[in-house]
Amino acid sequence: MNADARPLAIAITTGEPAGVGPELTAAALREARERWPSARFTVLGDRDLLTSRAGGAWPDSVDIEHHALAVPAEAGKLNAANGRYVLGLLDAAIDGAVSGRFDAIVTAPLQKSTINDAGVPFTGHTEYLAERTHTPRVVMMLAGSSERPLRVALATTHLPLKDVSAALSIDGLVETLTIIDHDLRAHFGLPAPLILVTGLNPHAGENGYLGREEIDVITPALERARALGIDAPGPYPADTLFQPRYLKDADCVLAMFHDQGLPVLKYATFGEGINVTLGLPIIRTSVDHGTALDLAGTGRADPGSMIAAIDAAVTMARHKRSA
Amino acid sequence: MNADARPLAIAITTGEPAGVGPELTAAALREARERWPSARFTVLGDRDLLTSRAGGAWPDSVDIEHHALAVPAEAGKLNAANGRYVLGLLDAAIDGAVSGRFDAIVTAPLQKSTINDAGVPFTGHTEYLAERTHTPRVVMMLAGSSERPLRVALATTHLPLKDVSAALSIDGLVETLTIIDHDLRAHFGLPAPLILVTGLNPHAGENGYLGREEIDVITPALERARALGIDAPGPYPADTLFQPRYLKDADCVLAMFHDQGLPVLKYATFGEGINVTLGLPIIRTSVDHGTALDLAGTGRADPGSMIAAIDAAVTMARHKRSA
Repeated sequence: MNADARPLAIAITTGEPAGVGPELTAAALREARERWPSARFTVLGDRDLLTSRAGGAWPDSVDIEHHALAVPAEAGKLNAANGRYVLGLLDAAIDGAVSGRFDAIVTAPLQKSTINDAGVPFTGHTEYLAERTHTPRVVMMLAGSSERPLRVALATTHLPLKDVSAALSIDGLVETLTIIDHDLRAHFGLPAPLILVTGLNPHAGENGYLGREEIDVITPALERARALGIDAPGPYPADTLFQPRYLKDADCVLAMFHDQGLPVLKYATFGEGINVTLGLPIIRTSVDHGTALDLAGTGRADPGSMIAAIDAAVTMARHKRSA
Repeated sequence: MNADARPLAIAITTGEPAGVGPELTAAALREARERWPSARFTVLGDRDLLTSRAGGAWPDSVDIEHHALAVPAEAGKLNAANGRYVLGLLDAAIDGAVSGRFDAIVTAPLQKSTINDAGVPFTGHTEYLAERTHTPRVVMMLAGSSERPLRVALATTHLPLKDVSAALSIDGLVETLTIIDHDLRAHFGLPAPLILVTGLNPHAGENGYLGREEIDVITPALERARALGIDAPGPYPADTLFQPRYLKDADCVLAMFHDQGLPVLKYATFGEGINVTLGLPIIRTSVDHGTALDLAGTGRADPGSMIAAIDAAVTMARHKRSA
């Protein structure tokens, strides 16, 4: 079968209208147009807002899919009246990706409180994407830019630290590893991904002296994953594993919890990290920062993460098409 | 009063005789002699072992304080018969530092099991130093070399992850911050140290949605510390704080637990990290790695961390003298 000849279609949701999403999208697309001349970018948002935040001129040959704001948006001022507008952008992008109209979606930051204050319970992009696409388990993975290719996936995400141990299970870890392994092959062009896995406790539990989860949960999960053909050695002490000499051969690190994996990722990627949701039927990437309300409208926010998120979406969509 | 005119006296314990400690000490002292020509170095260990592991020639003008091995030591082969020898080196160095004979001690790695198997309960250098000097609370701080000056102190150290939350207390954090602040002033020459403090939970608890320790414990402790004149802002999300732009102004980060703070420290310091015990009546620095039994006797182990530990000991001892 021939490769699909249509241009790659990338949707970008501009997120919270009081935040930096609209201007970062404009700034990032000026770069992305150069890098990916054959891709087609569709930006979802209010046309007047986008034009004004882009300094009057929107980048050439980018389609704007107009969704009207409920009330005018002021930079830096949250307004729950626009909560359903933000959600509408996301719904349209998801529907377009599920139907095949878009090859990937890139999401600018939104403010959870704007949506919640509009009366819609909302815990985050990732959870919403999973629910809307009927996906029982997704995996959050943060990644650096192509120059700093560290990737860190999380076994647990936004939980109080004291609840992390109880949230780990053999089945859950095997499912998580299966998703990572599948998506790294299918969307990242890695034919034999190597996933290094951390322990939960200091020194990976030091043979049970500093905790038993490595013995009771993580090691059995890794044995099952390996029997499924997944190359996932570990569990390793996190402070050993996260050294450049061990990372250089790894395609991904699976960390057991948020603050074990993300500080080093953020440190290493210098504000150009991105967030990728693995396990969805669609490709979704995102910036790894928030709405930066204090910078909105100033044009001073750094588009590095948005550029990296678009790069990753295009690259992943390409691999998916050629897979 | 005039400054003390005696040369700085630095003791180095060569640690586990089957490990890389003896050869790293020799390699590091070849450098340290150049860098610190006016300091006097005393190496504690078995003279024959040290000479043989140094390739036959020990660095010039370094004193060896001979302690006899119980049985000959073979590189890479642990032998509990030498457990009390290892402890004897440490005792002599501590006694010398307490009596004022040494200005600082630097410890090469030891193997806990060698000491335990010799019938002496031993949980680690840090705990042993605290006990021998009757110090109720010490603080473990890891640091980079002078070119990479990141410093990370830990509020809790070698605990199972699920026990971390219960181990935090307002009093404990205030004592920890008091020790860090004192030692950074007295031993690091920092007249107004800035200590950035992490939260315990992801996103520092997100106003209580992801855990309450920030509200109930950490914030009250920081308020009390600030009332004592300690510059300790926070709690910050760990993955925000550990970005180069926030770290550049900090003298130290206080992380709440081992794997929140040490992966990024190890990543950033490229094997040249060191371990400093704060709160002791004596100055003690150490390498941040283990005995590397597989490399012992080969001369291939990297002395970078040992060199950095000696540099830090000399620098700290100087500051202490001039304080």
